[in-house]
Amino acid sequence: MMNANRSPIRILGLDPGLRRTGWGVLTIDGARMSHVAHGVIVPDEKADFAQRLLHLFEGICAVIDEHRPDEAAVEEVFLNTNAQSTLKLGHARAAALIAPARAGLPVAEYSTRLVKKAVVGTGAADKAQIGFMIARLLPTAGKTTADCADALAVAITHANLRAAHRRVA
Amino acid sequence: MMNANRSPIRILGLDPGLRRTGWGVLTIDGARMSHVAHGVIVPDEKADFAQRLLHLFEGICAVIDEHRPDEAAVEEVFLNTNAQSTLKLGHARAAALIAPARAGLPVAEYSTRLVKKAVVGTGAADKAQIGFMIARLLPTAGKTTADCADALAVAITHANLRAAHRRVA
Repeated sequence: MMNANRSPIRILGLDPGLRRTGWGVLTIDGARMSHVAHGVIVPDEKADFAQRLLHLFEGICAVIDEHRPDEAAVEEVFLNTNAQSTLKLGHARAAALIAPARAGLPVAEYSTRLVKKAVVGTGAADKAQIGFMIARLLPTAGKTTADCADALAVAITHANLRAAHRRVA
Repeated sequence: MMNANRSPIRILGLDPGLRRTGWGVLTIDGARMSHVAHGVIVPDEKADFAQRLLHLFEGICAVIDEHRPDEAAVEEVFLNTNAQSTLKLGHARAAALIAPARAGLPVAEYSTRLVKKAVVGTGAADKAQIGFMIARLLPTAGKTTADCADALAVAITHANLRAAHRRVA
């Protein structure tokens, strides 16, 4: 499944959320990393819960159909002190795991802390620092919203760690 | 979407869980309720998380393909005191919401307490009482495991409440 010998490799990063799910696609070719596309999927907040999840799921499927990534990486989530919020986030995150798995992509998961550490160098980085590093590492990405920057950051993390990740798997 | 004028109506009930997701299908024709089928989807616990979710999702899609329900009903979940468990359950439950929504079915959600009240008459009913009432209400179902009994109980709840549910919607 992992296209270890194929180059370039195209990676889809996902930052899941029920209200907004950010996505970003980049390619790596040896040490060279290039931005492909990014965006955000925003379900109608007035739709019922199953429909909102379906919107996320189908939105991610559409991104996969259009950009044909080889591998996917999804951000793990903070456990909210509010159990109801944690539960909802779990639902949204499932859409971001099932859609690429269904397309036959290997799906890696990275904690927010690891993503920050991989991209900025410290697990305590804030959103501005993430945005700054995305602009440095992927200059053709242009200005990115926080959701998209986070999604691209997950993709960058996977680009840097996928070899180690594969060895562990 | 709701086939209010079609009879009989076929209902899929789902009791989602990451380790075991119970499903049950029944028909209602006026006041008459009949068992169609039930089962449990059990992903490989050793598979990675995205693959386990995919297994649940595809298992539910296969049930829908085979039994062609008109409407779906999914049990709401208890918020576990363990946030990690709550998060995982949210993931599993999303598979049970997205699969029927994707097939174009209306998806209703019912709390565990409401399901118990609808089937046994008290929100504090235990598993043995649920099993007993399933055997009474759906005698052709045979002996059911707890997962399947819960799934059939959600379907029965929807059978009883769908008219009111539709009015509210």
